[in-house]
Amino acid sequence: MTTDTLEAPRGGEMVESDFLKQLAAVIRAEDSYGQWDGKTDAEIMAEFIVTREERYDIPIIGDPDPDVMWRVGKFYDAVGLMIEKRSGCMASQMQKMSHEGFGRVVLIAGKLVVISKHLRDIHRFGFETWAKLAEGGEALVESAVQTIDAYPDAARG
Amino acid sequence: MTTDTLEAPRGGEMVESDFLKQLAAVIRAEDSYGQWDGKTDAEIMAEFIVTREERYDIPIIGDPDPDVMWRVGKFYDAVGLMIEKRSGCMASQMQKMSHEGFGRVVLIAGKLVVISKHLRDIHRFGFETWAKLAEGGEALVESAVQTIDAYPDAARG
Repeated sequence: MTTDTLEAPRGGEMVESDFLKQLAAVIRAEDSYGQWDGKTDAEIMAEFIVTREERYDIPIIGDPDPDVMWRVGKFYDAVGLMIEKRSGCMASQMQKMSHEGFGRVVLIAGKLVVISKHLRDIHRFGFETWAKLAEGGEALVESAVQTIDAYPDAARG
Repeated sequence: MTTDTLEAPRGGEMVESDFLKQLAAVIRAEDSYGQWDGKTDAEIMAEFIVTREERYDIPIIGDPDPDVMWRVGKFYDAVGLMIEKRSGCMASQMQKMSHEGFGRVVLIAGKLVVISKHLRDIHRFGFETWAKLAEGGEALVESAVQTIDAYPDAARG
């Protein structure tokens, strides 16, 4: 570990972001008993941050951890909900994941595929910083909303 | 078992159908060593027939058999290939299956969802007769081609 990573907080500075708020809300929705009420958003989203050092330490052999699959699911659930807020079109998620950590995620609104992402090294799913997590989610939402604008009939079909 | 089922061949009369030919071809594509060359199409597709009596005998508790998932996959592969032949649009398959035998299959061409089917009792996937298997596949292909005609830009997007 270098001195840099010891000085800066893990994940860098927290950023103000609609996407991060949505992701935290998606995670808190599973907390039926309010056990995380005392935790900050950064605490409950901590596992979405994977620093460069941590990344190298994660083996990409064998089945991806169920925790990783849960995180991928929550990330795209948050993307789907933001798409609905901005476009009015509900987007549902489908995943196809191989045992080796390769896969595809699609988000479907009506008859339209608004996001289609091929994933690899899913074992290492995560973002170096809060800023990158926020940008990553925002970029997907933005692209999906543009796709809906381009094919409005199919999205409502 | 009633006298009726003893008199008629299992699955009824074989029918002339483009879909059944496609399904047989999809299955034979896995036969790298030509071990099934001596078998008829009816023999290699026999498991797609599930008679009423057989249906009742299949429990719908627990994880669906991998063989059933294989058959569902081949059935929709055949549907996808027929869609491509008739429309020129390649259609790829995604499945989302719960451990209880509920699920969803979609076929995607470009950005368009050309087929979206919610499945249940997947353990019992099959058709009573060859005629019903052929009609079932044909109906899906026909509906997908109509969807592509309705949203041609999204299908080629």
